Amino acid sequence: MKMISPDFDNSSKTPLYIQLYDYLKSEITGGAIGSGEKLPSLRKLSRDLSISITTADLAYSQLAVEGYIYSVPQSGYYVSELNFGADHEITPPEKLIGHDTFTINKPAYRCDLSCFNFVKWKKCMAKVLNEYPEALLYESDPQGEEALRCEISKYVYSSRGVIASPDQIVIGAGTQQLTSHLCRIMKRMNIGLVSTEDPGYLPVQNIFRDHGFSLTKIPVTQDGINISKLPTNLASAVYVSPSNQFPTGSVMPVGRRYQLLKWATENKSYILEDDYDSELRYFGKPVPALQGLDKNSRVVYLGSFSSTLFPAIKISYMVLPEEMMNIWSDIKTDYTQTCSKTEQLTLALFMADGSYSTNIKKLRKLYSQKLQVALSAFNAYADGIVQPVNTQSGINILLKVRTKKDPIHLSELARSLGLNVIPTAELTDQDTSALIFYYNQIPLEEMDAAIENMINKWTE
Amino acid sequence: MKMISPDFDNSSKTPLYIQLYDYLKSEITGGAIGSGEKLPSLRKLSRDLSISITTADLAYSQLAVEGYIYSVPQSGYYVSELNFGADHEITPPEKLIGHDTFTINKPAYRCDLSCFNFVKWKKCMAKVLNEYPEALLYESDPQGEEALRCEISKYVYSSRGVIASPDQIVIGAGTQQLTSHLCRIMKRMNIGLVSTEDPGYLPVQNIFRDHGFSLTKIPVTQDGINISKLPTNLASAVYVSPSNQFPTGSVMPVGRRYQLLKWATENKSYILEDDYDSELRYFGKPVPALQGLDKNSRVVYLGSFSSTLFPAIKISYMVLPEEMMNIWSDIKTDYTQTCSKTEQLTLALFMADGSYSTNIKKLRKLYSQKLQVALSAFNAYADGIVQPVNTQSGINILLKVRTKKDPIHLSELARSLGLNVIPTAELTDQDTSALIFYYNQIPLEEMDAAIENMINKWTE
Repeated sequence: MKMISPDFDNSSKTPLYIQLYDYLKSEITGGAIGSGEKLPSLRKLSRDLSISITTADLAYSQLAVEGYIYSVPQSGYYVSELNFGADHEITPPEKLIGHDTFTINKPAYRCDLSCFNFVKWKKCMAKVLNEYPEALLYESDPQGEEALRCEISKYVYSSRGVIASPDQIVIGAGTQQLTSHLCRIMKRMNIGLVSTEDPGYLPVQNIFRDHGFSLTKIPVTQDGINISKLPTNLASAVYVSPSNQFPTGSVMPVGRRYQLLKWATENKSYILEDDYDSELRYFGKPVPALQGLDKNSRVVYLGSFSSTLFPAIKISYMVLPEEMMNIWSDIKTDYTQTCSKTEQLTLALFMADGSYSTNIKKLRKLYSQKLQVALSAFNAYADGIVQPVNTQSGINILLKVRTKKDPIHLSELARSLGLNVIPTAELTDQDTSALIFYYNQIPLEEMDAAIENMINKWTE
Repeated sequence: MKMISPDFDNSSKTPLYIQLYDYLKSEITGGAIGSGEKLPSLRKLSRDLSISITTADLAYSQLAVEGYIYSVPQSGYYVSELNFGADHEITPPEKLIGHDTFTINKPAYRCDLSCFNFVKWKKCMAKVLNEYPEALLYESDPQGEEALRCEISKYVYSSRGVIASPDQIVIGAGTQQLTSHLCRIMKRMNIGLVSTEDPGYLPVQNIFRDHGFSLTKIPVTQDGINISKLPTNLASAVYVSPSNQFPTGSVMPVGRRYQLLKWATENKSYILEDDYDSELRYFGKPVPALQGLDKNSRVVYLGSFSSTLFPAIKISYMVLPEEMMNIWSDIKTDYTQTCSKTEQLTLALFMADGSYSTNIKKLRKLYSQKLQVALSAFNAYADGIVQPVNTQSGINILLKVRTKKDPIHLSELARSLGLNVIPTAELTDQDTSALIFYYNQIPLEEMDAAIENMINKWTE
């Protein structure tokens, strides 16, 4: 056996036992000390190397814990059988080096925070950290913090006519996360088919697909989803956005809403109502949610804070009808809460003191001004070429552009100006390109010029 | 047609047009104004009720947007056909009332934050909010904030020997969330079978099951999972915790690690290495991660911050090998990031200034003291009755109790004292009850008495 002769560095901050451990490990993995060889006793090693027995013992024990060596009682330590080849040295990739800067990705304009009471938000967050530090000690309730669920319960009733006790509300980090929970619940109810709006909101469809659901696309008309094409004689679910359909912006009239509820009741099916952005209606009152009309517990209501607070907040919620709530109660402890507890409690305080309502009021005013200016600009610079469709709500408008250019090209031209414009193939035909235009992200004073520039690019 | 005669309340804060809208809506839904009936013209209504035409117009328009009435050009407004029964009145549930207090659920002791530098954490969070407010403007990268990925890359290399460029790291809100992403990736690789440790960590198994994977349980021995029982001639994955197996606390020796890597390489399979709690090893250095030994890109490494920071933080990460990373890059924009952006950036700052390393050092010292006191207490009060197993790492220890009482009963007795002790049926036999004891949650000065009380309850 090779001599054990580590080159100790007594000036190093690395403890001697670690130096000995490192040395022995590299001798073993390098093959200098072979499998099955017996190592010197602790007493001998300590004498040979002039180290304490404790140091030798610590090094051997660490090697033993990691399995490089093993001890045979009353006999000593032996090198283990290791099944690696000779070329097992690994060096860290170069990528690891040179990442010392603190960077945040900054796309072009994406959002307007001029209404957001940032000072208040920071105060609420400070209050949570200072006055409720014990909140950090425990994981969040899988269903979400009760304080926030109570605030949401009051808010959705007053603003959207949604009837939900705090016990029926489930909080999650985004609509996709909540949709995963819905998939788990629906599987246990033997629902395997989900109808979606065509065109509709794709990110949610990915989740249904991942969970093995069959998807069927139902065309959207001016009045929302075509109810007569929904599956019958079969328990299924339909994902709809009746108060502000994405991307057409259409609103389902109340008569159609009752028809949809009737379909759900008759077919023991469920309506998954995505109420995204519906607080932001600029003409009159917001259209109340479908959930509030439901007497037969057939509606799941989904809401979110990212358009009304700021995009980086990932807090969404859903209101479950009774049967689904019972199933959720049985399985909820299987799943951990994904929302930040600090942010959930911050939002609860922000809602409780009225800051959230104030924020929405200000947003409605600002966005309706922006919308006005945007519509005037399209009228002035693109009359007869660009037709804005369903322009009463939300943070985006659908544009129908009379052109032979395809919408992907138009979108790229707009993006080159820093504007967020998304092509919509489903609504595009030979003579018309359809695009979704996020007008809300453009500062009011830049709106007119931004649209003029975009139209110029498009008509060049 | 019934007279339109709303009872206007001029002293109310509700605008007149909303009062008119509410009145008309209730007349329509109550059946007093029937389907198909023509409403008075705007001019007539304004004259009859002594209101402005604008007020009448706003009320009609809102009813029209919601579909209660419709307009026929050059003719006027008509009541829509509504398909509801007579008894459609809905009142909010009583649950809605009386939820004005701001409450936080407080279980018995759950965690010890005495090492956590709360002041520093708050400073880092304030810095994010003050100096990087633009961070809130944009959604987080689906893969996680780059600043945090860079810090994690440096940290896992120095502390765990894990080789990961920031581009290979994916951040998510908890191990369950990351496991969902793994399911999506593996499905695209036609992997459908996952082997898990028996006994093992159940919350992750729920996710594989939800995504339709077949699960096969492989027994765990003193040296970790029994490799000879893993499936061969088939691409599959195995979920293991080699550095601190849950719940047995066993460590897989390095020779077995190479065997496991060989199995993965030969069978084109993957090792999902859950490295939970492995920073917390109280004897010598932490055992390096398996990932660092892998030359063939067969290992996914999973880590988390909840045991080393505080339980309420839901930030976890995984390191993907090349082939999986390529698939993830193709699909990642389909999924939104679930972690709080504010908390991700706060953690990046907390790591960058060394506070996180300091925290871990302090935790190791405190927890090793607690462990010492706990082991002495078991020795003093329950020698020959309670055997603590694999007590070198982590935040819990496995207890084997020589008793005829079943572990659920013992767990309840411990919980009645505020202690977090979980029964483990898989390791229990006729003469021995097995339980997982979270010693880390008990203050050092209360440890001895807490264990004495628990033993007294158990042996009464």
